[in-house]
Amino acid sequence: VDTKIALTGFGNVGQGLATLLHQHGEEYRHRYGTRILLTSVSDRRGAAIDAAGLDLPRLLAAKSQTGSVGGYGVESGESDPDAFLARSQASLLVEASTTNFDDGEPGWTYVREAIVRGLDVVLASKGALALHWKDLFERARERASRVLFSATVASPLPSLDLASYSLIGTDIRSLEGILNGTSHQILTAMSRGLSYDEGVRQAQEMGIAETDPTLDVDGWDAAAKAAILANAIFDTELTVHDVRRQGIRGVTVDDLQAASAAGETIKLIARVARTDSDVEASVAPERRSIDDALGRLSGDAMGVVFTVEPLGTMAATIEFGGHGGGITTAMTVLRDVLKLARSRSAFPPR
Amino acid sequence: VDTKIALTGFGNVGQGLATLLHQHGEEYRHRYGTRILLTSVSDRRGAAIDAAGLDLPRLLAAKSQTGSVGGYGVESGESDPDAFLARSQASLLVEASTTNFDDGEPGWTYVREAIVRGLDVVLASKGALALHWKDLFERARERASRVLFSATVASPLPSLDLASYSLIGTDIRSLEGILNGTSHQILTAMSRGLSYDEGVRQAQEMGIAETDPTLDVDGWDAAAKAAILANAIFDTELTVHDVRRQGIRGVTVDDLQAASAAGETIKLIARVARTDSDVEASVAPERRSIDDALGRLSGDAMGVVFTVEPLGTMAATIEFGGHGGGITTAMTVLRDVLKLARSRSAFPPR
Repeated sequence: VDTKIALTGFGNVGQGLATLLHQHGEEYRHRYGTRILLTSVSDRRGAAIDAAGLDLPRLLAAKSQTGSVGGYGVESGESDPDAFLARSQASLLVEASTTNFDDGEPGWTYVREAIVRGLDVVLASKGALALHWKDLFERARERASRVLFSATVASPLPSLDLASYSLIGTDIRSLEGILNGTSHQILTAMSRGLSYDEGVRQAQEMGIAETDPTLDVDGWDAAAKAAILANAIFDTELTVHDVRRQGIRGVTVDDLQAASAAGETIKLIARVARTDSDVEASVAPERRSIDDALGRLSGDAMGVVFTVEPLGTMAATIEFGGHGGGITTAMTVLRDVLKLARSRSAFPPR
Repeated sequence: VDTKIALTGFGNVGQGLATLLHQHGEEYRHRYGTRILLTSVSDRRGAAIDAAGLDLPRLLAAKSQTGSVGGYGVESGESDPDAFLARSQASLLVEASTTNFDDGEPGWTYVREAIVRGLDVVLASKGALALHWKDLFERARERASRVLFSATVASPLPSLDLASYSLIGTDIRSLEGILNGTSHQILTAMSRGLSYDEGVRQAQEMGIAETDPTLDVDGWDAAAKAAILANAIFDTELTVHDVRRQGIRGVTVDDLQAASAAGETIKLIARVARTDSDVEASVAPERRSIDDALGRLSGDAMGVVFTVEPLGTMAATIEFGGHGGGITTAMTVLRDVLKLARSRSAFPPR
């Protein structure tokens, strides 16, 4: 059985997915019983479509040589989401275009169109989820379309997996986490004596921070993740704008030194807590003991801690061995794809 | 839809399950769409059977007053597993009797009988898994019986969940963990200056260690967990006797003080590692930095760390707020039960 994928966005995550499929496609076919084909890809400037499966090395070369998948060399048709999806013959959309928190476009349009066509959807971009949660899942329910989004919540940290599998039957009261890698890296650098500006520059040189780091350092990215986790775990309908949000621009080296003198450090903590009547989400820099599950994490790491009744606390942390970034997000996307493909292949195809 | 359960063993875990069902049964019915009924329970000295559902307060009272569920007051029939399962009309066996690592009885006989009858099985005891893995799953496959066993691998630590959901598509190279709570508690007490004997006595007074702590302090329990995790994750067929095993009896307060002087501590670490040709499992006391994901855990905690390519390391830890023991294991059993009940209710009942 083939699983045909339409992919929107071809940045780090999209290229990571193509690379994984090229390098490990045979292995996945053997292990998971389905051949995964990329049958259409679009980026800001063009599209490549072949319902028989795009040639992945050629696709990656076109992107690196011409700056767009449009250089792959098929006639265009990319500006129309409907035609893009129809011609790909895909059963699944992977949405990995650059996100914004104003209207969630261009991803939101593609996602709606995919749902109308009965495709399943795997999201790597946060805009649609952090702005249109309710609308999105109403549409999906109506068309029996499945929507997975592990990659949007600090993948490959298993926040959603813990909540939906490992903690079934318990009462989750709250979660807190270090969910934004860039701010975390900058705070770690500052705790070693660098200024905020130097920390940002270092993160940019490491390829972690964007040229404009606003979404990370002002807490937007962490706030979007908090809203998505709140919605998924506590069944609310928050948008990123409902999350109390304070970034790390105000944190000084003096603050970090004062914390250090007290056996503490400063981390950008995202928190979602259930009260009797409500669910509250926030992002802010916090002093933490260097011994606690989040306070001990430095540099290249992420973590989440659930407070659960009647258990106590359950923490999951990842310390990357220099492997953060696009490829690990691509692996999370792939995992969602494989989940959908596996359950789909057990039934007659639509 | 009702889910009828036959339960073998009525110690901490079995009583915990009955208590949870009594306290939260209505809530589970509402949340998961099935009414869970305990229709038969056996312990060493008797059985109670009612296909319409046992009265749970009466069952718990019978146990505490007479020392056996036989005091519930129905005619016996308990010595014959076939009759016990038939009369319960159960679709699911929960096996929670006291384990042994010689022949895995009495659980192994009940499990085989349940599989023959087409029941699904949830295991809380380790004997059958740690001795008869291959045989057990061949029988289960043949009868399309599903066998879950989260509770046997240091529940509620999500070791299996991480391996089977969160790390899909990655290459797990090894795992190491603090999987035995009793040894961990004793080592923690010793690191605070208590002798080994005092540590054992304290753990016994806390209700953590058995009167005969052999299975815990000699590493049997951790070794069984390592064998089960190895089999489940790396598709091997190890028994507990294939695991290199060293317990904590040889650890002295001097050893712990020497470790402490070097910023380290001593933990009983279970390890499973994949080599090119083989899978190796071991249990032994190890010096660990007090900063690392396992070394930092003290007292009332457990943890597991996966080394994964190309990710880095993924750790999951639980710090219990005094809630370890029977009730948390019972919650894990219940979680497996709910998983089976949910997927079962989507299809016509057998």
